[in-house]
Amino acid sequence: MQLEFLGTGAGSPSKQRNVSSLALKLLEERNAVWLFDVGEATQHQILHTTIRPRKIEKIFITHLHGDHIFGLPGLLSSRSFQGGDEPLTIYGPVGIKTFVETALQISETRLSYPIEYVEIKQDGEIFKDQTFQVEARRMDHKIACFGYRIVEADHPGELQVEKLRELAIPAGPIYGQIKAGQTVTLPDGRQINGQDFIGAPQKGRIVAIIPDTRVNENSVKLAKNADVLVHEGTFAKNEQRMAHNYYHSTSAQAATVAKQAHVGRLLLNHISARYVGKAANQLAYQVQNIFPNTRVVKDFEEIEIPFK
Amino acid sequence: MQLEFLGTGAGSPSKQRNVSSLALKLLEERNAVWLFDVGEATQHQILHTTIRPRKIEKIFITHLHGDHIFGLPGLLSSRSFQGGDEPLTIYGPVGIKTFVETALQISETRLSYPIEYVEIKQDGEIFKDQTFQVEARRMDHKIACFGYRIVEADHPGELQVEKLRELAIPAGPIYGQIKAGQTVTLPDGRQINGQDFIGAPQKGRIVAIIPDTRVNENSVKLAKNADVLVHEGTFAKNEQRMAHNYYHSTSAQAATVAKQAHVGRLLLNHISARYVGKAANQLAYQVQNIFPNTRVVKDFEEIEIPFK
Ligand SMILES: [Zn+2]
Ligand SMILES: [Zn+2]
Repeated sequence: MQLEFLGTGAGSPSKQRNVSSLALKLLEERNAVWLFDVGEATQHQILHTTIRPRKIEKIFITHLHGDHIFGLPGLLSSRSFQGGDEPLTIYGPVGIKTFVETALQISETRLSYPIEYVEIKQDGEIFKDQTFQVEARRMDHKIACFGYRIVEADHPGELQVEKLRELAIPAGPIYGQIKAGQTVTLPDGRQINGQDFIGAPQKGRIVAIIPDTRVNENSVKLAKNADVLVHEGTFAKNEQRMAHNYYHSTSAQAATVAKQAHVGRLLLNHISARYVGKAANQLAYQVQNIFPNTRVVKDFEEIEIPFK
Repeated sequence: MQLEFLGTGAGSPSKQRNVSSLALKLLEERNAVWLFDVGEATQHQILHTTIRPRKIEKIFITHLHGDHIFGLPGLLSSRSFQGGDEPLTIYGPVGIKTFVETALQISETRLSYPIEYVEIKQDGEIFKDQTFQVEARRMDHKIACFGYRIVEADHPGELQVEKLRELAIPAGPIYGQIKAGQTVTLPDGRQINGQDFIGAPQKGRIVAIIPDTRVNENSVKLAKNADVLVHEGTFAKNEQRMAHNYYHSTSAQAATVAKQAHVGRLLLNHISARYVGKAANQLAYQVQNIFPNTRVVKDFEEIEIPFK
C-alpha cells in the first residue's frame, strides 16, 4: 500500500506542482489503484509513473472545482484507448456524472468499459467489500465537498507453519482446520489447539484524505487513528483569516486535526504557488510543535504505508 | 508572426508529444495570440513558453474530439486567475458552447472576462477586421470539423522618409498628404507626387490549418497560395486505406494538397505515437518528391512566417 502524489498544487498548475490528484496504490492488496481527484493533466503525470490506467478501479472526487476534475474526461478516454475494459466506479458530489457524460457525449467518446457513478448525498459508508471500507463525510468548502476515510480490513493471523513442522505434524488438509483455530486430533492421537498455531492478527491500515476545507469536526472523525492523514495546507500557520475567507485551512489547523485524531503521520498537500521550495517546507516546520510527524509532499513523491 | 506548436500528437498524450494545440502569435500585428485547438494540458505547455494567457484573444476549435478540447476549461480558468479581463472569442462547431459552459457551471468557475461563442454552421468568413480575415470550411472527419484560413490584410507601402529628406522636404503635416499618395505643392513652389515616395505594398501573409480529415477539396481551397500550410499527418504515405477508415489523411495526401495549392511550406502535425524520432521525420522525407518543402514539427517548435 502506497500513496503516490500526482498533483500537490492549489488552483492552477505551476512548473513545480500540478493540480490535485493522488493515487492510493493497492496492487498487493487488490491489484488496483484508486485515485482521489483528477485535476487537468493527471494522465500526463501518470505517464511518468509506473501506474497503468487500466488498473484504476475507483476514482473518488472530493469536490467539483476545476483543479480537481478537469483531467477526468481525458483520463477516462486514455484508459479506454489503452485497452482498459474493467468497469470503473466514480464517487463524488452530485454533478460529477453530468460533467463527465457531457464531455464524453460532446466529444463523441465511446469508452471500452462501463462507468458506475455513485453521487454522494450524505455522510457515511460509500463502499465496503472483504478487504476495504470507505467512508465519506461532508467538508466545509462552499461547494459540496467530501473527505474520505479508507479502512483496510484486519488481516487474520498467519498459520505458523514452522511451528507445526517442528512438532512433525505433516502438511495436509488438517492444516486448514488448524488455521481455522479448531482443536484437532492427529493420526498419532495427539490433540492440538489451532489457536496455538496462529500468529497475531494484523490491524488493517487507515488512510484519511481531507481536501479543500475550513477546519471542521468531520475531519477529526475521518482521521481518527489513521496511519496517514493527507490534509490540505493551502495557507500558512498565521493566515487563519484568509484561510477562513477562502474556505481553506492553515497548516496549523491541519496539524491540530492530526493531533486530535491521533494519526501516525500528517502529509500536507494542495500547496499554494505562493510557497515554493524552502518556503513550502516551512508550512510543515512551523507546525511541528503541534504535530511533529508533519511534512509537505511533492509531485511524484511516494509514501509507503507499512503495517504497525 | 510566428506559429508555436504546443501539441503535435494524435489521440492521447505521450512523453514526446502533447495532444493538439497550436498558437499563432500575432504580437507585432495585434498584440494578441490566437490558439487553434486546446487539448488537455495546453495550459501546462504554455507554462514553458513566453505566451501569456491574458494575450489570448481568439480560440479556434477545429472539432470536438477530446484531444482537441479537453484543455479548454482549465485554460479559461487560468486566464481568469492570472487576471485576464479582455473578452475572448471561441469559434468552433456547434456544441463547443455547451461543453465549456457545462464545465464552468459544474465547477462553479466565474471568469473575470466575457466569452463570445461563434458556432460555425457553414463554410465562409467567420471573422474580419482591418488587419485579418479568417475563413472556415468543413472537413471530412465523421464528427463536424472545420479547417481555417487566416489572411493578413496587405500592408500599404511605407512612406520613404529618407527620399523626402534628400529633397530637403521638411517634416510636417504635409507628410500625411504625401503618404496618402496625393500631389502636393511645397512652400517653395515645387510640386511632388506622393506616389513617388511610397514603397511597394507588402502582401499580407496567409496561414492555412487543416486538422483531422480525409483528403477533400476544401483543403486546397483553404490552402490556396498560403505561406504556411499546417496539415495533419496521422498516417504514413502507404497507409491510405487506414487513413480513409479512420477519417484521416496520409502524409502523401497532405503533400498533394500543398502542391495543388501552391503553398510556401508544409508543416505536418497530429503525429501518431506509432512514429517516434526518426520514424516521425520519415513521414516528411517520404513525400518530399511530391512537395519538397515539407517537415514534421515538434512540440514547442516555433516557425517564423516572414513577408515574401
Ligand atoms: Zn477547491
Ligand atoms: Zn479527431
